Amino acid sequence: DPKLKIFALNSNKPLAEKIAEAVGVKLGKTSVDRFSDGEIRINIEESIRGDQVYIIQSTSAPVNDNLMELLIMIDALRRASAKTINVVIPYYGYARQDRKARSREPITAKLVANMLETAGATRILALDLHAAQIQGFFDIPLDHLMGAPLLADYFLTHHLAENAVVVSPDHGGVTRARKLAEFLKAPIAIIDKRRPRANVAEVMNIIGDVKGKRAIMIDDMIDTAGTITLGAQALMDAGATDVYASCTHPVLSGPAIERIEKSPIKQLIVTDSIELPAEKQIDKIVQVSVGQLMGQAIKFIHENKPVSPLFKNRFH
Amino acid sequence: DPKLKIFALNSNKPLAEKIAEAVGVKLGKTSVDRFSDGEIRINIEESIRGDQVYIIQSTSAPVNDNLMELLIMIDALRRASAKTINVVIPYYGYARQDRKARSREPITAKLVANMLETAGATRILALDLHAAQIQGFFDIPLDHLMGAPLLADYFLTHHLAENAVVVSPDHGGVTRARKLAEFLKAPIAIIDKRRPRANVAEVMNIIGDVKGKRAIMIDDMIDTAGTITLGAQALMDAGATDVYASCTHPVLSGPAIERIEKSPIKQLIVTDSIELPAEKQIDKIVQVSVGQLMGQAIKFIHENKPVSPLFKNRFH
Ligand SMILES: Nc1ncnc2c1ncn2[C@@H]1O[C@H](COP(=O)(O)O)[C@@H](O)[C@H]1O
Ligand SMILES: Nc1ncnc2c1ncn2[C@@H]1O[C@H](COP(=O)(O)O)[C@@H](O)[C@H]1O
Repeated sequence: DPKLKIFALNSNKPLAEKIAEAVGVKLGKTSVDRFSDGEIRINIEESIRGDQVYIIQSTSAPVNDNLMELLIMIDALRRASAKTINVVIPYYGYARQDRKARSREPITAKLVANMLETAGATRILALDLHAAQIQGFFDIPLDHLMGAPLLADYFLTHHLAENAVVVSPDHGGVTRARKLAEFLKAPIAIIDKRRPRANVAEVMNIIGDVKGKRAIMIDDMIDTAGTITLGAQALMDAGATDVYASCTHPVLSGPAIERIEKSPIKQLIVTDSIELPAEKQIDKIVQVSVGQLMGQAIKFIHENKPVSPLFKNRFH
Repeated sequence: DPKLKIFALNSNKPLAEKIAEAVGVKLGKTSVDRFSDGEIRINIEESIRGDQVYIIQSTSAPVNDNLMELLIMIDALRRASAKTINVVIPYYGYARQDRKARSREPITAKLVANMLETAGATRILALDLHAAQIQGFFDIPLDHLMGAPLLADYFLTHHLAENAVVVSPDHGGVTRARKLAEFLKAPIAIIDKRRPRANVAEVMNIIGDVKGKRAIMIDDMIDTAGTITLGAQALMDAGATDVYASCTHPVLSGPAIERIEKSPIKQLIVTDSIELPAEKQIDKIVQVSVGQLMGQAIKFIHENKPVSPLFKNRFH
């Protein structure tokens, strides 16, 4: 019977620990560090011949380093005769470069998929890919988990769902907002950002009823936090009693933290798909863990059981 | 007739300028920068449909960023209908990880080759690969240039070759030393580093005659400069009149600059395959350019002429 082994790379060790605990195994022994010139040195310190290996790595910032760590680890595992190489990517970097929006652009999300397969990945476990179409960039099996049930659980257990309206910060996110609203048994609203004429400031038009309600915004990721903080202000101006925000992936780059601090957002609920450095762990931000969810998914995959029931209903 | 276009990425713009000048074209218009979260953004600002495109990029430090720039650029060019994508890699990073020296190691030099082909490279132009076997990691045409003739030219035109002996700092580099010695019409010597017993300091044993001679050491790359500076001291102790060192790739990481400063090395002759930041441009280090050589090679490739005559004899 092939053994299940889990290895953590450097992007998100705390989450990897939680996943391993949920699966009920210890993390595999490996050292992943640098040579003097910055090249990645990987040393797998236990035999994995014939094993079913899971690697936990988010390709968050520093994205190129984290991605190369992952590719080199896959290469090492393949050459060391792993039976299967299952790549667990809680946050999939370069996901927004998923199409040619302009001429002569790369489609880096597809390039990354090709590279993972070329290196030797045999299966992917992902969480809230920026676009569901990225599943089709892979020719190997991919299981796609959803963070919304966990975020829903937070709002429900903290009694924040009563008299709430779930708000999508843009057109693109309506399906996601719809899903959270279902879990919360709340209505939805949409922020419709429009520039009436060139060189005129954007107008935030709110479609749906938010007056006298708690607004709960949801997105897949929050990067520079421009959209979400402007949206929060528009919701307050439209008479919301208070505003919460939530997302699966707390990218939080550049001015994000400052903007969130200054905004009317009361709390931002995120997952731990990306590890937050100390300076981003501000009081307003609450992290809920996907460790249990991802650990369960790994167990189900290992036992050849379908993964979707884990999140089609709310996760417990 | 398909046009020849050259694009530079960020690792070594000064060399790219020199190469373009040698070819007689202007560098193509492109912008390669970062999104707020550190992901690479590439924008090719002119049509390259049906063109023969050359990309100049060394995968020197920061190696993962430079490699990803290259892969994403190849992806963008392929999707923009370039006729051929010729990747010019003056310095090939990860070249030392070219075999499993221990169990469960990756072979990153091969992984990089696979990734370049997967992204869409149709040809490679390389310079002094750490091991010639790396040529076989590619299934696309690869031309392999040699820096030794340029280094030889420096020693000859500066009248340093008279009464000289070319020294290989280790067994592995004897073929390379032999080549330089041929150009300089000088004899060779080899430094034979041995640890007589465990826990006893290494002994530098010099094979060949260096007493009363100018020693010229050559290697393909100098990284932390341990071997070369210890070798220089051993050569002085053995009665060399003075010691010069040379290499194609000035990696120069960690303690390298300090060690070179303190060593008896009189001058270190390197190429510009890797751009040297200001703090590494010390008086002892002389850079000779491979721009003309690589430019000529590109012209020959574009005209379907054999490239090897360019360096089989000394380069002019
Ligand atoms: N890391 C990034 N940060 C900001 N914008 C990006 C990033 N990667 C890609 N994009 C841009 O975001 C757009 C896609 O975003 P979206 O419409 O939300 O799917 C594309 O046009 C990209 O040019
Ligand atoms: N970037 C690097 N810096 C130092 N050593 C390396 C690096 N990459 C690989 N190596 C090691 O260098 C050895 C090969 O060097 P060589 O014998 O000179 O070909 C391998 O055993 C690697 O573990």
